Amino acid sequence: MSSIVVMKFGGSSVADADRIKNVAGRVAAKRKQGHRVVVVVSAPGDMTDDLIAMAEKITDSPSGREMDMLLSTGEQVSIALLSMAINERGVAAVSLTGPQAGIFADQDHTRARITAIRPKKIFEQLKKGKVVIVAGFQGLNPNEDIATLGRGGSDLTAVALAAALKADVCEIYTDVKGVYTTDPRVEPEAQKIDRISYDEMLELAGAGAQVMQARSIEVGKKYGVDIHVRSTFSEDEGTLITAEVPRMEQIVVSGVAFDPKQAKITLSGVADRPGVAAKIFGPLADEGVNVDMIIQSAPTEGRNDISFTIGRVDVKKAMGVLDRVSTDLKAEEVVCDDKVAKVSIVGVGMKGHPGVAAKLFKSLAEAGINIDMISTSEIKIACVVREGDGPRAVRLVHKAFGLEKPRVKAKA
Amino acid sequence: MSSIVVMKFGGSSVADADRIKNVAGRVAAKRKQGHRVVVVVSAPGDMTDDLIAMAEKITDSPSGREMDMLLSTGEQVSIALLSMAINERGVAAVSLTGPQAGIFADQDHTRARITAIRPKKIFEQLKKGKVVIVAGFQGLNPNEDIATLGRGGSDLTAVALAAALKADVCEIYTDVKGVYTTDPRVEPEAQKIDRISYDEMLELAGAGAQVMQARSIEVGKKYGVDIHVRSTFSEDEGTLITAEVPRMEQIVVSGVAFDPKQAKITLSGVADRPGVAAKIFGPLADEGVNVDMIIQSAPTEGRNDISFTIGRVDVKKAMGVLDRVSTDLKAEEVVCDDKVAKVSIVGVGMKGHPGVAAKLFKSLAEAGINIDMISTSEIKIACVVREGDGPRAVRLVHKAFGLEKPRVKAKA
Repeated sequence: MSSIVVMKFGGSSVADADRIKNVAGRVAAKRKQGHRVVVVVSAPGDMTDDLIAMAEKITDSPSGREMDMLLSTGEQVSIALLSMAINERGVAAVSLTGPQAGIFADQDHTRARITAIRPKKIFEQLKKGKVVIVAGFQGLNPNEDIATLGRGGSDLTAVALAAALKADVCEIYTDVKGVYTTDPRVEPEAQKIDRISYDEMLELAGAGAQVMQARSIEVGKKYGVDIHVRSTFSEDEGTLITAEVPRMEQIVVSGVAFDPKQAKITLSGVADRPGVAAKIFGPLADEGVNVDMIIQSAPTEGRNDISFTIGRVDVKKAMGVLDRVSTDLKAEEVVCDDKVAKVSIVGVGMKGHPGVAAKLFKSLAEAGINIDMISTSEIKIACVVREGDGPRAVRLVHKAFGLEKPRVKAKA
Repeated sequence: MSSIVVMKFGGSSVADADRIKNVAGRVAAKRKQGHRVVVVVSAPGDMTDDLIAMAEKITDSPSGREMDMLLSTGEQVSIALLSMAINERGVAAVSLTGPQAGIFADQDHTRARITAIRPKKIFEQLKKGKVVIVAGFQGLNPNEDIATLGRGGSDLTAVALAAALKADVCEIYTDVKGVYTTDPRVEPEAQKIDRISYDEMLELAGAGAQVMQARSIEVGKKYGVDIHVRSTFSEDEGTLITAEVPRMEQIVVSGVAFDPKQAKITLSGVADRPGVAAKIFGPLADEGVNVDMIIQSAPTEGRNDISFTIGRVDVKKAMGVLDRVSTDLKAEEVVCDDKVAKVSIVGVGMKGHPGVAAKLFKSLAEAGINIDMISTSEIKIACVVREGDGPRAVRLVHKAFGLEKPRVKAKA
């Protein structure tokens, strides 16, 4: 049997007829190479946003079920049009909605998780020699209702399908050429990374690199799916996200991630007693606020300062929660600084090289950039800096670790 | 158990948020009266046309299956938004796609017929007290693909659902107030008809009245569904299409139908032998050309003239067919006159009143309007006239039968 390739195209790749035809050309070429091809697509261009805007004109609080009924039409439009465009090129194609493709999800509407994939119909159609176009972002839940998978849902569909179909590779087509050593808009000398491990990619995604959401990479890691992130508009190879990345010893730092829109919240003078952290972070989690770094100072006279960072979009929600709990905690003050950014370096083997952290801190110190918070993991060091210092810090660190030099090609 | 009412709203009734809210108000009011309510909706406004335009940019010959995958999204958008709007009013509602509602169709994509309705989910949701919103125009075919029902498909969904649910009435909401004695744009004194029989309505629909397509009325007749055609924008009663219409003896003519866009094709000097008609009308039917009136002259010297009328949209297709067959028929000439119109009077009991036809012909003759073709049925007399004479003929006939006078209210 020939190999199976899953190709995923985002909304901007299918935003209009010309782009859909371009995608059809790429898919047809892949099929003509002899692969069995499964394509996953998102809703065209701004359609999802337009549908949300329509719903907002009608109600402030749509039920999740009806929202999913509405939003799932976007991907359905894409699969039908793309299937037509591929057939028009003389390559047989057939479209399947998520439910038709055998994608099952849980009942958590608008952010459901995939629970199972039973790709019977996909295999039937592949057997007939057809390219199978599957609607991303959607599945069937136990009530036989359509459920959508939330942000990054189409990537997730693609990676999960690749796992279920035992595909050779899951190709994620985007408007960038791959994963870079840092954001090229901040550091023009950023280099495309040829190969990167799931773990490093997870840290990069968590630290602000926008290429793929963590949940898709996690599924890829769990099932060992090779994920190839590449450009819709170029034939060049992109970045392969895979299990093991053999590389020259000297490469320790893979990339510099940058999240310019962070906020830091400090509760000062909190009583130093058990359960305090739970009282803060429990309610925040309940409200869906994603807390990133947390730092607690050494207690002085039975009192503590607790600082943590969140995405700036969540500031209003978080402050609302803290208003409720701070009295109970007897906090002296709650201060929000929404003018901070996060710069992180990521690389496997970092822990074994004590010089890495020192080099990072030194390069920032020499440039007079103050580090507000630090957190480390096995393969990441993250620093919170002033928002205004962020881009400069990225460029300095990128240079300090020699990332602007063309990468030594790793052997597969 | 309380009565079941099916309410159907067309695309213009759900074209934007304000109109959807208006519909939601009507549905909520009906529910609050204690009825169990099932709503059928079409795609919003121009969405179906927009989707077709998108497909046309991609291919001239889309597969029916993919076209149905595309077009069925329109109704799905409507049901989701309407369900949200009804819930927003505090009345519980739930949307179902055609397949979810248990509507099954055959494999004739883009013009499928309903083969069965298994309304298990609808009854489950009605039992929970919910208003059930069903996507019109679509069903599931034996391949488990979405199939659309073609023109008038949402009306058909509504009437067929009303039959399957044994609903008390199927309300068809439109932008007109009901069925009129003739087209009010042609004759401002046209009167709304309170009640009309299925058979009369079928003749009116066939004779050019645009309110409802014949296929829905046929299903209504077959299953005895009372169909109430009424305005989306007014509380007034509309027209009830039902089995028997008790009425005062003097009312014989119910209405004057007008189809301004007809064409008449004449094949002259055709050999008068068996099988000629089949050779003409078989190939026309194969091409989907709907032939209306057919007139064959008495043979002279073994040769005949055959004339028939079709909708003007089909002229090109029909002439193509006739080009192929006329040589074989040894026809002397094929002439197409695409400047004719059809004026018909419809009424139960017409046959028993010989004066009716005479009055019709006399009123036209006195005005100098020439009748080109005549055809009659049990409850209809149709006349083909010059296109330019059409509107005047409608007004004359309408007046001749006293239809401009307010109707004597029939007793139910």
